[in-house]
Amino acid sequence: MNEHNVTMEDTLALLLEGKKYASIRDVLTTMNPSDIAAVFSKMEEERLPLLFRLLPKELAAETFVEMEPESQEMLIRGFSDSELRDVLDELYIDDAVDIVEEMPANVVQRILSTAAPDMRKNINDLLRYPEDSAGSIMTTEYVSLRESMTVGDAITHIRRTGVDKETIYTCYVTSNRTLVGMVSVKTLLLAPDDEVAISDIMEQNVISVTTQTDKEEVAQMFQKYNFLAIPVVDGETRIVGIITFDDAMDVLESAATEDIEIMGGMTPSDKTYLRSTPFDLFKHRIPWLLLLMVSATFTGMILNVFEEKLQAVVVLTIFIPMLMDTGGNSGSQSSVTIIRAISLGEIEFTDLLKVIWKEIRTAVLCGCVVAVACFGKIMLVDRLIMNNNAVTPWVALTVCLTMVITVCVAKIIGCTLPMVAKKLGFDPAVMAAPFITTIVDAISLLVYFGISSLILFR
Amino acid sequence: MNEHNVTMEDTLALLLEGKKYASIRDVLTTMNPSDIAAVFSKMEEERLPLLFRLLPKELAAETFVEMEPESQEMLIRGFSDSELRDVLDELYIDDAVDIVEEMPANVVQRILSTAAPDMRKNINDLLRYPEDSAGSIMTTEYVSLRESMTVGDAITHIRRTGVDKETIYTCYVTSNRTLVGMVSVKTLLLAPDDEVAISDIMEQNVISVTTQTDKEEVAQMFQKYNFLAIPVVDGETRIVGIITFDDAMDVLESAATEDIEIMGGMTPSDKTYLRSTPFDLFKHRIPWLLLLMVSATFTGMILNVFEEKLQAVVVLTIFIPMLMDTGGNSGSQSSVTIIRAISLGEIEFTDLLKVIWKEIRTAVLCGCVVAVACFGKIMLVDRLIMNNNAVTPWVALTVCLTMVITVCVAKIIGCTLPMVAKKLGFDPAVMAAPFITTIVDAISLLVYFGISSLILFR
Repeated sequence: MNEHNVTMEDTLALLLEGKKYASIRDVLTTMNPSDIAAVFSKMEEERLPLLFRLLPKELAAETFVEMEPESQEMLIRGFSDSELRDVLDELYIDDAVDIVEEMPANVVQRILSTAAPDMRKNINDLLRYPEDSAGSIMTTEYVSLRESMTVGDAITHIRRTGVDKETIYTCYVTSNRTLVGMVSVKTLLLAPDDEVAISDIMEQNVISVTTQTDKEEVAQMFQKYNFLAIPVVDGETRIVGIITFDDAMDVLESAATEDIEIMGGMTPSDKTYLRSTPFDLFKHRIPWLLLLMVSATFTGMILNVFEEKLQAVVVLTIFIPMLMDTGGNSGSQSSVTIIRAISLGEIEFTDLLKVIWKEIRTAVLCGCVVAVACFGKIMLVDRLIMNNNAVTPWVALTVCLTMVITVCVAKIIGCTLPMVAKKLGFDPAVMAAPFITTIVDAISLLVYFGISSLILFR
Repeated sequence: MNEHNVTMEDTLALLLEGKKYASIRDVLTTMNPSDIAAVFSKMEEERLPLLFRLLPKELAAETFVEMEPESQEMLIRGFSDSELRDVLDELYIDDAVDIVEEMPANVVQRILSTAAPDMRKNINDLLRYPEDSAGSIMTTEYVSLRESMTVGDAITHIRRTGVDKETIYTCYVTSNRTLVGMVSVKTLLLAPDDEVAISDIMEQNVISVTTQTDKEEVAQMFQKYNFLAIPVVDGETRIVGIITFDDAMDVLESAATEDIEIMGGMTPSDKTYLRSTPFDLFKHRIPWLLLLMVSATFTGMILNVFEEKLQAVVVLTIFIPMLMDTGGNSGSQSSVTIIRAISLGEIEFTDLLKVIWKEIRTAVLCGCVVAVACFGKIMLVDRLIMNNNAVTPWVALTVCLTMVITVCVAKIIGCTLPMVAKKLGFDPAVMAAPFITTIVDAISLLVYFGISSLILFR
């Protein structure tokens, strides 16, 4: 695939130099819009306007949608008003809104003043919905039928109006704009004859979302029900738009990426890695690094307080990294599992006690096995192989008891914090590894010194 | 939503007690199969067979597909042969294969012996494809057209055969089973008249996958091209099946969950959290905990070697947790970012140098800012507020220089290891936070003692 693209951009560059415009057009029209956009993104910027003008109108608009915002902006700035209008005419409203959201103000102004009046109104309406709402990702171009139509009427209606609709496969039946039913093209085509009334074959129990529904919740519904499209209604159950499965897939993918970024201790970014500058990456990473560095102050303070004890039994220091890492890993295992389950809608706050009870049992199993293994490791590696006589069985016992308790505490904190965060309206992903590690570090040190006081400093 | 379900299961239980079977049937037929399965999963097991028999045939099969494997198995064991055959008859092949893969051997045998001969053959054929291949998730029920058909012929053909097809919206044009084109129902319906030949309106440049293509790669293609379905061909470009968008969405979701689990230091699990027993969770978590605990031996060994130095300047111990955490966090930021970009197909091994160079510049920015902040924090908190006179500016300098170097090394390791893992054929997600942390811990200690030797132990 990649090698194919490399050849393709070289070929296009050579064809351009030789002014073989007809051949370029022929080559491009065999390709898929996503692939054309990928090839374009690797070509020199000055060549884009010429290449773009060689595409047939519809393919040009489809390719435009797939391009990176920087290239879109560059092209728009080079378009004449009529070229811009041609592209806009071919766009679906939701794609137009996505593009408008990425452009600087003066480009937005030019797009809106160039667009046809009803498109301008539609774009403005959709821009008004909150960023993460169903309203912000819906399109207003859907097929609307009436109950009184027959199957034949409906098919005629689709044939007349379908060309401008984002999907024709799911049609919505309305009465005074209120959503009363749904019928698929499959049902229409498989109907016994053309005279059957829509009201007789339509699905009346239509699952819909409101303009205010969170877009991730909508995407989860696609996952659950395998819909091609879902209708969006306003406060009075009037249909105002639809969301199609491709947009839901995009939402699911960005949501997973966002979760992963936050869990990795970064603020989420819209840009892909290769498009991000080092300064972009820096901006998304430094806040968490600073926050976590400063919160590690607590571990420093604890060590400060117990400095004398450490001086007396320096050998205790040797096991601090292992205890902290094992605690951190145990906690992050639980938090990551719970964060993902929350994201997928598998568990809710009411499951908290069930979850804690499950984690406690898991933690006891994990803690005991790790502690026993650790005791063996300490006696073998640290005492025998490294020949460190300060590592007595009592020291090993102290370390292993600390480990059991740390693993249990880490898992309880790890499962509780994400659920509490969700309940309080924060993103549970914030409570992942880096954050849990910092808390667990401090706790494991306190437990460590507490147990050493009992066992070693009697 | 949830409250609605709770009421629903209570209502059904009461209706069952009152033997109001007709009403139960009426209630269930207003519901979506996924929702019925969700309600069933909350009811007492003994009631399932009776409830299930109340569902109309098609709805019963659709609900069956959405149920948990345990309930499916229980139902199958209770079915008479003819009931089992009725359910199997209504299933799409890919769903039947999914179910067969989850069942114990004796249930599989019963399913295969009960299924109609051609379904049995199809199931057996599909079971033979490798687990993660396109072949294993495809279905053989697609609409196949011939080039010589007219639009009218095609629509008639769809009307006659479409009821058993997983999707009718994308039709494949074949010649001796070889894939020669594709035409959507939208194109058919919007064709100027019924006499147009399929060969004139079909898309000839069809993107397809082979039975051996990795299923995650197929899912990424849906994401990229917004397809409803993609054809699967064998070695001789004969079409053998199709994959539909809903299966691709499932693959994308499991792939993201799997990545997240591995990144959290667990072996991936097929079961949802609430269905996993503590012992299941233990089994998936303990290998990594043990591995990471044992590999923390290196940090222990390093501290062992430098024990004397620590004894001389115990204050150095105070900053070990902070240095280790900051290093771990820096490394995991990079590794998590790169792992996700690899999963989404954004970067490949050939980008390695570009990625390293970007990470180095980011690391220098992050490292310097964190180090300067850290110097201020140490002088303010540890020296002034905690009043620890052992914390000299030279100690602070040692800590901060270590921090800059650790951040840089962590980010380089964090971005390199996932890409190398991918190149070597391992899952890049293995190289996430827990693993990177362990390596970075050891390196940060070595750097720490190296720099202290230069600055403090001259």
